Amino acid sequence: MDHAGRLRRLRSGLEENDLDLLLVTHLPNIHYLCGFTGSAAALLVGDPCSVNPGSILFTDGRYRTQAKAELKSANVKHVKIVIAPKSPLMAAAEWLAGQRRSSMPGTLASTSVGIEAEALTAGMRDRLASVLKGKARLRSAPPLVERARMAKDADEILRIRRAVELGAGLFRIAREKIRPGVREVEVAAAMEYEARCAGAEGMSFPTILAAGKRSAIVHGRASDARIPRRGFVVCDFGVILAGYCSDRTRTVHVGRPSGEARGLYQAVLEAQQAAIAEVRPGVTAAEVDGAARRVLRKRKLARYFTHSTGHGLGLEIHELPRLAAGQAQKLEPGMVITIEPGAYVAGKWGVRIEDVVVVTSSGCEVLTATEKELVVI
Amino acid sequence: MDHAGRLRRLRSGLEENDLDLLLVTHLPNIHYLCGFTGSAAALLVGDPCSVNPGSILFTDGRYRTQAKAELKSANVKHVKIVIAPKSPLMAAAEWLAGQRRSSMPGTLASTSVGIEAEALTAGMRDRLASVLKGKARLRSAPPLVERARMAKDADEILRIRRAVELGAGLFRIAREKIRPGVREVEVAAAMEYEARCAGAEGMSFPTILAAGKRSAIVHGRASDARIPRRGFVVCDFGVILAGYCSDRTRTVHVGRPSGEARGLYQAVLEAQQAAIAEVRPGVTAAEVDGAARRVLRKRKLARYFTHSTGHGLGLEIHELPRLAAGQAQKLEPGMVITIEPGAYVAGKWGVRIEDVVVVTSSGCEVLTATEKELVVI
Repeated sequence: MDHAGRLRRLRSGLEENDLDLLLVTHLPNIHYLCGFTGSAAALLVGDPCSVNPGSILFTDGRYRTQAKAELKSANVKHVKIVIAPKSPLMAAAEWLAGQRRSSMPGTLASTSVGIEAEALTAGMRDRLASVLKGKARLRSAPPLVERARMAKDADEILRIRRAVELGAGLFRIAREKIRPGVREVEVAAAMEYEARCAGAEGMSFPTILAAGKRSAIVHGRASDARIPRRGFVVCDFGVILAGYCSDRTRTVHVGRPSGEARGLYQAVLEAQQAAIAEVRPGVTAAEVDGAARRVLRKRKLARYFTHSTGHGLGLEIHELPRLAAGQAQKLEPGMVITIEPGAYVAGKWGVRIEDVVVVTSSGCEVLTATEKELVVI
Repeated sequence: MDHAGRLRRLRSGLEENDLDLLLVTHLPNIHYLCGFTGSAAALLVGDPCSVNPGSILFTDGRYRTQAKAELKSANVKHVKIVIAPKSPLMAAAEWLAGQRRSSMPGTLASTSVGIEAEALTAGMRDRLASVLKGKARLRSAPPLVERARMAKDADEILRIRRAVELGAGLFRIAREKIRPGVREVEVAAAMEYEARCAGAEGMSFPTILAAGKRSAIVHGRASDARIPRRGFVVCDFGVILAGYCSDRTRTVHVGRPSGEARGLYQAVLEAQQAAIAEVRPGVTAAEVDGAARRVLRKRKLARYFTHSTGHGLGLEIHELPRLAAGQAQKLEPGMVITIEPGAYVAGKWGVRIEDVVVVTSSGCEVLTATEKELVVI
């Protein structure tokens, strides 16, 4: 992973946005920029006090050894580590407040510090401002790091591929465990046990296992409900492996499916395939979403497709871009996105089919493509 | 659970703090006040437009059915449900901005709306303010709901008791699985599988299983490391059951413990017992912390006890009060707290022993007291 390059590119981004410094408080962004994975940190990027501008990572005493090791392993130079006695954010504020005017770009009061307004509580910003006492201007920065994270590099794609492969193996467990009368949660527990033993740090979100009428609940977390003798079972699950997330949905049918059930499944599958076929550089996120929606509209199922077609994933389970109507973001090689249309009829049933794809120079690759014909149990 | 009483008491709290309304955005607080458990909501408490003042729960379309059912089951009257097309918070802001002056207490511009500044991002507060355009004053409210949540009622204590009982059973699995050569993560996976099958919604935090030298890492999440032939293994784990958290730590020793190891364990156990003996109404959180620290100081181990003695728990794994130096909060009957001193020698070993206790009228009850003599495996 080219952490040093990421920091360098971010510094250019700061200049373009008239920011002298960026105070990074979103932990996955800190992980992305310098490799640090601790649970308490603030990263000040664009340290103006150095001739060769560096950055400062503020963390607390619990992470003294870990921070040093992770930054060394990420091979980032010019990142100083400051161990804060209490809050890393307050330490960053005090560091900023303590700078002499002469060492700052322009006069101190004109120093413009970007903050990540979606990764800072209102209370934290108030405390920050009160420590700075007007010595620097705080400005909400655009999501510079989130945008940079959209296109993954080769190392990241490899990690996501491995996470998706591990995740794919869990569906085998689900197929074995899904039987009438079994509680949804038992199936999820078996999948999660396997994931842990296979080296996953954890699941990337609470496992969704929704059987029978519950399959119509889009986020139907595995519950105590028993799998009925007949009906769909939506399995939506992912793991975190070496920091990166996977995400996959398969829908199976317990008992003999009716013609209508087969038709619904087929429609969702075709919608998914149409969306995958649309993925290539230059196409907008909205166009991919539209491709899935078009198929379902023809089958008069559009109103049952109640969520967006997909989302980026990587260090977080939900990243940019969002594949939804109105999203003008163009796809670029290296973006990793989910394609997951569904159709849900409340009180009756639901189907969703999801894969992770990587945008390539000419189209896309489905990560760990597997059979998608309707599995009947 | 007396949700209606909680809302009523909160309204009195608003008056005392010169707030006309409180915009509750911390989801566990919303759960506590009206029983709603969805993942997107804002609760406006103290609706001044009603003669019999009610509240408004803003959520989105996914939760239409669930919100109605949960509010009914919580038996809260005067809570209206508003289904927001997009963000519940923005819907609340627009509702506030749309109120006619005459219907608000005082003039509209003088309406004082409390916000939970630690449960609202800086970006969210900016958007809120821009929708309100000065039509109401936003003020950071004190943690009124968090303070109310400190003392649990009988129903809550029962739920925590059941969660602690389920959690206690998991230690049996740990004792069976902990063997030299087994990976930490396999032990954790087996415990988590059992928890799920026994009905837990999930773990209340990532399971800590830290063996050998890793036992010195206070938050040593279960890793791929193998359990050595000899040394301590710290097991710190909890479940969420019916919404409430459990938390427990036991430290076992693999292989024959040295005299020094036995001494360390005994010192931590005595520190824990001293802290438990200190718990009763009127004693401050700092005094309980001090009782544990005093025992370790006598054994010259105080510098190895690097964290606080405990914390409240309930709907969240970390709640008020904090049991640490300087904490003047007095204990009251119904408070549920952890007592968890430890001692950690970096690169060598660590021990922690933790129970959950309920403050009673004359002292405390250890929830599901179990044997705490050193278990040798």
